[in-house]
Amino acid sequence: MKEKLFNKVCIFGVGLLGGSIGMAIKKNELAGKVVGIGRNIERLKKAVLAGAVDTVATDYTAEVKDADLVILSMHIKSSIEAAKKIAPFLKKDAVVTDVESTKELFCKKMQQILPNGIHFVGAHPIAGLERHGVDVATHRLFNGAVCVITKTSKTNKNALLKVKRLWNKIGADVVLLSPCQHDKLVALTSHLPHIAAVSLVNALGKSGSIGKDLKLVIGNGFRDTTRIASSSPQMWQEICVTNKKNILDVLSKFQRELDKIYKLIHESDSEELIKELEKAKSIRNILE
Amino acid sequence: MKEKLFNKVCIFGVGLLGGSIGMAIKKNELAGKVVGIGRNIERLKKAVLAGAVDTVATDYTAEVKDADLVILSMHIKSSIEAAKKIAPFLKKDAVVTDVESTKELFCKKMQQILPNGIHFVGAHPIAGLERHGVDVATHRLFNGAVCVITKTSKTNKNALLKVKRLWNKIGADVVLLSPCQHDKLVALTSHLPHIAAVSLVNALGKSGSIGKDLKLVIGNGFRDTTRIASSSPQMWQEICVTNKKNILDVLSKFQRELDKIYKLIHESDSEELIKELEKAKSIRNILE
Repeated sequence: MKEKLFNKVCIFGVGLLGGSIGMAIKKNELAGKVVGIGRNIERLKKAVLAGAVDTVATDYTAEVKDADLVILSMHIKSSIEAAKKIAPFLKKDAVVTDVESTKELFCKKMQQILPNGIHFVGAHPIAGLERHGVDVATHRLFNGAVCVITKTSKTNKNALLKVKRLWNKIGADVVLLSPCQHDKLVALTSHLPHIAAVSLVNALGKSGSIGKDLKLVIGNGFRDTTRIASSSPQMWQEICVTNKKNILDVLSKFQRELDKIYKLIHESDSEELIKELEKAKSIRNILE
Repeated sequence: MKEKLFNKVCIFGVGLLGGSIGMAIKKNELAGKVVGIGRNIERLKKAVLAGAVDTVATDYTAEVKDADLVILSMHIKSSIEAAKKIAPFLKKDAVVTDVESTKELFCKKMQQILPNGIHFVGAHPIAGLERHGVDVATHRLFNGAVCVITKTSKTNKNALLKVKRLWNKIGADVVLLSPCQHDKLVALTSHLPHIAAVSLVNALGKSGSIGKDLKLVIGNGFRDTTRIASSSPQMWQEICVTNKKNILDVLSKFQRELDKIYKLIHESDSEELIKELEKAKSIRNILE
C-alpha cells in the first residue's frame, strides 16, 4: 500500500497545473480525497471526468474546513482572493501551497492573509506554460520537472517537508530558494525570454502581412524561439506586474546587448561581432 | 531504375549540409558520381566513410572540368573564393548552386564571377542550423524542409528546373523567391531570432555567475528560445554582414516593441500590456 501524505486535498483551479497535480496525487494514492474547487461547474465536471479530482465543489468555505492541504492553482489575483475567503475556515495546521510563477509578492500576501497555525509553503513547478486546461493535464506533467519551493524564516518546517515530499512523489526535482532568489532567477530564465518572444512576434506582425512565403520560410528556429508567446496573456500580465523590478532590470541588460550587436552590424565590425557570437555560444553550451 | 539528374556532382564543403545533400543524392541515385571537395583531407575521408560522397579531391580545378553540377556548401566567403577559382574550368552548361543563408549579395557575386554559359541558381535549404559536421549529416535532413530557390531575370530556366527537381527529389518543398525577397524574409524569421537568442544568452552571462540554481530553474522555454545561439559564430557573422540592411531594419522594429513593453511594465499599465500579449498570441497562433 502506498503512503498517504494527506487525508483531504482541495485544489483551487483545475486547469493544466491543478488538474495534473490532482491526477498525479490520485495516481500515486497520496491523499484520501482530492476535491476540485472553482467557479465554473462545467470545467469542474470535466476535471472529474478527466480523473483529476474525486469530487468538486463551488462552495469552498464548507469544503476546506477539514482539508489538510489546499493548493491554490489559479491566476495570482484569484488565488489571493481565494486565500482571503478561506482563511477563517481552515483547520489548525492545514498547509496552503500554490503554483504561481512569481513568489515574493505572493508569499508576502499569504503571510498577511493566513492566520497563525496555518502554514503557507510557496511552490512553482516549472512545467507546461504554453498550454492550459484540464484537457491537456496529465499525471506525468511533473516527471523530471523542477519545482521550486520557497523557504523563508517563517516557513514551518513540517509543512515544508510535506510539500517537498508531495512534489518528489509526483516526479519533480525540488529546489529550495527564497522568494526573492526565485523571482530574480525566473526573471532571467523565463520572463525575459517570454518578453523577447512576444516582441519578436509583434515585430513580425509589424513587418507587413504574414503571407504564404513568410509562413513557408519560417524555420524551426523561429517557431522554437517564439512558442512561449502563445501562453496565457492574463497570466503573463500578472507575472510582469508582480515581478516588475527584476524584469525591468534584466530587460535593460538585454536591450544593452541588442544595442551592442546593432552597433557592431551597423559598423560591419566582423571581429567584435564574432566575439559576441562566440561568447553566446559558449554560455549557451553550458546550459544544455 | 531511378532517374539520374546529373552525371557528376561536385560538392564543395562536406559538413552537415553538403554531407547531407551528398547522402541524399546517393540514396536516391540522382547522380552518376558525387565528389567531395575541400581543403581538409581528414574531413574529406570522414565524408567518404559516412557515405556522403563517392570520392574526394583537394585539387578541384581538375575535378570540376566534367561536373554537371557544382554545389557550393561552405561559408559565404569560402564559397565565393572557390567560385572564382573554378570559374575558368567549368564546362559549358554546368550548373552551380549553393546553400548560403543570405542570397542577394551572393547571387550578385556569382553573376559577376561565373562566365556566360555557366548557370547559377541560388538555393537555401532551411534546415539544420545549430549543428555542424558530416558526423551529424543524414540523407533525411531535408525531408519536409523548405528550400528557397532564388530566381532572377537572368536565371536559366533549365538550370532552375534541374536544381528544383534535385531538391524535390531529396524531400524538400521548394519556394521560389527573388534574392531580395528571400533576404527580407529570413532577416525576420531567422536572423532576428538568432540575434535575440544571442543577446538573451549574453544578458544572462552578464547577470552574475551561472550557478547550480540557475541551471536547475531554466525551463524548456529558455532552452528552446536560445538553442539557436549555439550555431556557428563564423557563419552568423557572415550572415549579419551580408544581410546588414534588412537585419538592422527588423532589429530596430524589435527594439521598439521591447521599448513599448518596458514602458508598459514600468507604468504597471496592465490593460495595455494584456493587449500586447494578446496580439502576440494571436499572431503566433497563425504561424504554427
